[in-house]
Amino acid sequence: MIETPSLVDQYCHGVLRTELGLATFEAQLARTEGPPAPGTTLFDTQTGFAVRRWCPPLLGLEPHCPPARYLARRRELGALEAGRRLLRGSGVTAYLVDTGLPGDLTGPEEMAAAGDADAHETVRLEPLAEQVADTSGTVGSFLANLAESVHGAAAHAVAFTTVAGARHGLALAPEPPDTAQVRGAAGRWLARREVGGELADPVLLRHLLWTAVASGRPLQLHAGLGEPGAHAGRTDPALLTDFVRATAGLGTDLVLLHGYPYHRHAAHLAGVFPHVYADAGAALVRTGARAAAVLAEVLELAPFGKVLFSSGGRALPELHVVGALLFREALDRLLGGWVAQDAWSARDAERVAQMVAAGNARRVYGLG
Amino acid sequence: MIETPSLVDQYCHGVLRTELGLATFEAQLARTEGPPAPGTTLFDTQTGFAVRRWCPPLLGLEPHCPPARYLARRRELGALEAGRRLLRGSGVTAYLVDTGLPGDLTGPEEMAAAGDADAHETVRLEPLAEQVADTSGTVGSFLANLAESVHGAAAHAVAFTTVAGARHGLALAPEPPDTAQVRGAAGRWLARREVGGELADPVLLRHLLWTAVASGRPLQLHAGLGEPGAHAGRTDPALLTDFVRATAGLGTDLVLLHGYPYHRHAAHLAGVFPHVYADAGAALVRTGARAAAVLAEVLELAPFGKVLFSSGGRALPELHVVGALLFREALDRLLGGWVAQDAWSARDAERVAQMVAAGNARRVYGLG
Amino acid sequence: MIETPSLVDQYCHGVLRTELGLATFEAQLARTEGPPAPGTTLFDTQTGFAVRRWCPPLLGLEPHCPPARYLARRRELGALEAGRRLLRGSGVTAYLVDTGLPGDLTGPEEMAAAGDADAHETVRLEPLAEQVADTSGTVGSFLANLAESVHGAAAHAVAFTTVAGARHGLALAPEPPDTAQVRGAAGRWLARREVGGELADPVLLRHLLWTAVASGRPLQLHAGLGEPGAHAGRTDPALLTDFVRATAGLGTDLVLLHGYPYHRHAAHLAGVFPHVYADAGAALVRTGARAAAVLAEVLELAPFGKVLFSSGGRALPELHVVGALLFREALDRLLGGWVAQDAWSARDAERVAQMVAAGNARRVYGLG
Repeated sequence: MIETPSLVDQYCHGVLRTELGLATFEAQLARTEGPPAPGTTLFDTQTGFAVRRWCPPLLGLEPHCPPARYLARRRELGALEAGRRLLRGSGVTAYLVDTGLPGDLTGPEEMAAAGDADAHETVRLEPLAEQVADTSGTVGSFLANLAESVHGAAAHAVAFTTVAGARHGLALAPEPPDTAQVRGAAGRWLARREVGGELADPVLLRHLLWTAVASGRPLQLHAGLGEPGAHAGRTDPALLTDFVRATAGLGTDLVLLHGYPYHRHAAHLAGVFPHVYADAGAALVRTGARAAAVLAEVLELAPFGKVLFSSGGRALPELHVVGALLFREALDRLLGGWVAQDAWSARDAERVAQMVAAGNARRVYGLG
Repeated sequence: MIETPSLVDQYCHGVLRTELGLATFEAQLARTEGPPAPGTTLFDTQTGFAVRRWCPPLLGLEPHCPPARYLARRRELGALEAGRRLLRGSGVTAYLVDTGLPGDLTGPEEMAAAGDADAHETVRLEPLAEQVADTSGTVGSFLANLAESVHGAAAHAVAFTTVAGARHGLALAPEPPDTAQVRGAAGRWLARREVGGELADPVLLRHLLWTAVASGRPLQLHAGLGEPGAHAGRTDPALLTDFVRATAGLGTDLVLLHGYPYHRHAAHLAGVFPHVYADAGAALVRTGARAAAVLAEVLELAPFGKVLFSSGGRALPELHVVGALLFREALDRLLGGWVAQDAWSARDAERVAQMVAAGNARRVYGLG
Repeated sequence: MIETPSLVDQYCHGVLRTELGLATFEAQLARTEGPPAPGTTLFDTQTGFAVRRWCPPLLGLEPHCPPARYLARRRELGALEAGRRLLRGSGVTAYLVDTGLPGDLTGPEEMAAAGDADAHETVRLEPLAEQVADTSGTVGSFLANLAESVHGAAAHAVAFTTVAGARHGLALAPEPPDTAQVRGAAGRWLARREVGGELADPVLLRHLLWTAVASGRPLQLHAGLGEPGAHAGRTDPALLTDFVRATAGLGTDLVLLHGYPYHRHAAHLAGVFPHVYADAGAALVRTGARAAAVLAEVLELAPFGKVLFSSGGRALPELHVVGALLFREALDRLLGGWVAQDAWSARDAERVAQMVAAGNARRVYGLG
């Protein structure tokens, strides 16, 4: 048995505070642009099956019980108490919470309290820039306020995160745009923008990335086929190679989030570049019973000091706990299997498990 | 044991009616542009080994017997009787037969009779357009006849299928071309075309896809590294994302055939878009002993209501039966394994198996 | 048990002659652009763990012993004797040695002597062209000397190898450049080149490939995410499809080296084109405990007469022996597993093992 009693969840969101009906709950199980196939529900996925396998026992029910029964029990306990029981069953001792999503989600403090764990904030760059744009009157004030906001966020957040890949694709020009380019792009964007408008301009996205890199905080980049977004063909992290090379040696770490189905490419970059890390968690919630197979592919090329766990959990504490328990089981099965084959020593396996589960994240994010 | 007594083969072709010598038989085992490596035959592939494993017992021989012995037994029974024994050993109860290939292959009625099963026609769009071009004198008559032909086909066929990906690559402009573009492209194509000439013009291919989409019949799109064709770098189904988005909400389902080695990308699209389905069959015949591993990758992201079986069988009934038996064994091994690990419940596994084997296809194609 | 007592290592380099300290040794374990993660070493990788698993027993130590102890024993024996013990424990009976790397590495004769095996030279095209450029005064003499050098190398080498993919990316125009293009590109390159300058011009790279193809010697092309080089997004061997098609039927075999993580694409090309072969070795050293999983993916589409073993070993004999032992174990596990499931017959498995381990390479390279 490879034990991982303490996990750092290096990327997640908060959870919903309200009581959830079956439909509302189910809608959070998948990133989809419409209803499930006729005669099925969003529980009929690896994620849904994994939730049904891991969560009911934490609320005193049988594994695999019907969704309606599970939801009834959840309402009986109340969202708060159910969340507490779930999160405390995960083994996670620290959460890094991306607070940049819309919706009424709990923040780091509430995650910490509910999960009896530490919690830290990760700041999402694009909404930060959009908020600054909402309150800035001129190009000059927008750029000054943006610099100040990123600087201010770096003082309290443990990391930045960006969805530039979903917004524009990852094949961004690698070098920082010059001042004239940034001013021009900001002028054009602000001129045609309404309040709340999304940032997708590639020059401004690059400016944002480089501003964040300059802060020294680790920068998490979303990659892979995660969101329904418009750029399915441009989310391969290998497209980031030139940006990665341009940021080498500056003292800022890059963390490639998710990555699936290009997670082997992300692992390659983590092997080649000292400042690049690969995520080994977020795809697990989506692939359920296949979690060990996906994790194994990450562990082919990625050095063991370069792999970080995350759940990618959002809105439902079930996703945080499923991410954690799938990861722990997968790691035990994989590393335990390699020990059983004598491919690895038991001692090495224990050490790698601690690194991937928590130690690497503690070091990268400077956690206690 | 996960049982799948009834399969719908959602994509296959007919079989050859004539007696086959060893060389003729072997030539059908692979899509290759030339002879096998010196000292080997096309039986020295996963497909060849799978044929030798699954087919001899259905004709009363030992598994893995030498090809020559198998062919001798096949000739002894006659092509018709051998085909009947093979197809009836597959568990397939309905075939969807793409009738658009050249060569003397059996049609749906003969497949039904030989296999003691239902059979339905799938119409391949490109040969349909080429036949219309062969018999139309002007651009106007070509386009009118094409519309009528697609409309007529939709009345009796259960689906359309397209090889636009092999002809041009899947990175087609997503929107329907306008009338002037279509007339211009048709004029140029017809002017330089000889009778039988292939349709590869991207404007006409898009026109054809959109004409088929308008019919409401499910549209099957070939994707992945299937055929030797010229566009190996442009067959990733992720390239279809914009076309998929453009066709959302129109009431026509899209089925991504084959997909390998991009089948995880196809599964992603099936998860994101309500009208997209992923094929979980055609790659199995080509990967043989690895069928369960490939199927598992499809079942990572694809919702279970969105996966369809096919054999992709062509010319040899052996390919139909090997596709079916590999699929059934792979599904049993995978789902049975997940039940044994308690990742899935047995009841869920049974239900998913029926959906993937037959239920999803019955629903999508409106079969009885 | 699937036995492979004799291996041909179709692609490797020589080994260092000098005694190695821990740091020097460790630096050879990975292709990386900087130091490992804080608190870890380059031993904390699949390659490092595999070296610790397989090599200590060949020097009389326990598997998985600490690196410092292993290095101490290595120094005690001396680099020469340690190399002899290691190489002779690999089962390799013939090495094809790429002599085009800088550094003080042993040549084929020394590899043969140390390993008690045959050894043959493979000539790397780009350094050959660079050496010719160093000693040629004019465009005319450069091109004449280059033709002569390639011709001369073909007389004693068993193959050519090219890193055009790492230098420029694999999406090279497929046809040979014409004389004027070559003269123009050579003139520009020579004019701005200093002695030792790297060849990365796409016209000259294509000229070099076609010159090598004309020699009739097998041409090995590096593909996949192997080196840190600048073109991570352009190393998919599917990008070679048009070049592969253009060289079909000329009588020269192409061998796609490495390929990972696009090894399924390489296997597809090996299945479609009679003159294309897929490497099934070099990725194994890098993926260690996952070697069987990676090899299995190659064996999906690649015909069994088209797969060749290599270690990719460089500088450390440990890498040669780990490549060989991982390959032998992986092949035994995979093929043995398929036999145990009755997917393959034992006789077929034995035959395929001999082909992939040695027979195919003996045929392609014309070895005794």
